[in-house]
Amino acid sequence: MTEPAPAAVTACLVIIGNEILSGRTQDINLNYIARGLTEVGVQLTEARVIPDVRETIIATINEVRAKYDYVFTTGGIGPTHDDITAECVAAAFGVDLILHPEAKRRLEAHYSARGIEFNEARRRMAHVPDGASLIDNPVSTAPGFRIGNVHVMAGVPKIMQAMFDGIRHGLKGGPKMLSRTITCGLAEGTVAHDLGLIQADYPAVEIGSYPFWTGGGGFGVSLVLRSTDPVALAHAGEAVIAMIRGFGGEPVEREPEIKE
Amino acid sequence: MTEPAPAAVTACLVIIGNEILSGRTQDINLNYIARGLTEVGVQLTEARVIPDVRETIIATINEVRAKYDYVFTTGGIGPTHDDITAECVAAAFGVDLILHPEAKRRLEAHYSARGIEFNEARRRMAHVPDGASLIDNPVSTAPGFRIGNVHVMAGVPKIMQAMFDGIRHGLKGGPKMLSRTITCGLAEGTVAHDLGLIQADYPAVEIGSYPFWTGGGGFGVSLVLRSTDPVALAHAGEAVIAMIRGFGGEPVEREPEIKE
Repeated sequence: MTEPAPAAVTACLVIIGNEILSGRTQDINLNYIARGLTEVGVQLTEARVIPDVRETIIATINEVRAKYDYVFTTGGIGPTHDDITAECVAAAFGVDLILHPEAKRRLEAHYSARGIEFNEARRRMAHVPDGASLIDNPVSTAPGFRIGNVHVMAGVPKIMQAMFDGIRHGLKGGPKMLSRTITCGLAEGTVAHDLGLIQADYPAVEIGSYPFWTGGGGFGVSLVLRSTDPVALAHAGEAVIAMIRGFGGEPVEREPEIKE
Repeated sequence: MTEPAPAAVTACLVIIGNEILSGRTQDINLNYIARGLTEVGVQLTEARVIPDVRETIIATINEVRAKYDYVFTTGGIGPTHDDITAECVAAAFGVDLILHPEAKRRLEAHYSARGIEFNEARRRMAHVPDGASLIDNPVSTAPGFRIGNVHVMAGVPKIMQAMFDGIRHGLKGGPKMLSRTITCGLAEGTVAHDLGLIQADYPAVEIGSYPFWTGGGGFGVSLVLRSTDPVALAHAGEAVIAMIRGFGGEPVEREPEIKE
């Protein structure tokens, strides 16, 4: 008898920001969070990019916090009128937005040390939903916060990264997703049929196929195998390597150099 | 009497791909599509990143195609087992997946000219939902398709871009979103209060505030004004410029050089 496999721990990222949807800003937070979560055994299962619209933020937060183990948000926690994430998360949880004494103390000390007025707008950044705990911001002081399974972080990548790095090892992860990337110079359409047979043989391994081009007519395919089961991963990997050799290809365990 | 403002034309992007959610691949399609849609008067209102899971793809497509004027998808239309977008879109629309004669003809000619077998896996790429029309692929032939308001495109950026550029001028856009970016060396917390007053004065203008850091202790804020109304945009812009000068700042109409 084998133990049932432990359930995956899932997460959803909600990227809040008109600037991403307008194309002004290229998001790089999803990728950072995805990699960081994988390392602690949490699987990013969905991401949404939504505008700075109150009803949309509230509805989205309530939908995804019920659906996933963890929710992370980026964006909308600064001092200006368009920073409405904290009040929306409070509304989603049906609690008041309160001035957090420790957040206020940190921000007061921060601005006082720099001779900058701790004005009403900056005081907004000390407000969190009632019952929330702070997420430290070692870059620019104004904290994020956690309430329930929702983690609210800044949108500026450097600040988001510092906040996320401070909390991610405290997350309760499930089995870690292991992966192998096997690259070869064969066409995707050549390996497709046999790759499908290997996928059918190893249902515990998720096999992705990603064609690439190297410029000057060169091409190939990267086969990405992911599993929480190291034995299944090893066996599926050997099957993929044997398949590639069977087609006269040369399997290499690395990412390709892609030149578009 | 003024005419009622024409309604915005909205779009949702559905990024289908485990490789984005795992962090293996940095998505750059959202940004390209966002900018391209803005130019033709279509507003990207939401984006979702979802895994290569049949039920999730079908449910997401059906939710967003009812909610937005246009839906675009990227990813999952190649020859391998993990390319399930076409069959999922067919299921979402409740129609069969059929071999499209023109897609088959193009792919047959493509592979024949290169002496490559048009095998069963490659034949998969000629299948589209019954009733769909093709979206040309000038890069690698295998077409995307459109059914109803859903536009299905490749995930590889170079191919996606060629497909999207071929269709975007055929979209029926609404009023074009105009924008101005006014940057200055003031702190976001300094301008926040007065910026909120300007936002309240110009509800037809969406004002976003984005702080930045230039390295070596330098910082500033970019104020992004967006509106379909050029007169309101001009007036709000003048108000922002006057506000910045009132705080002793120097307004500049450009994006900052950000160094993190």
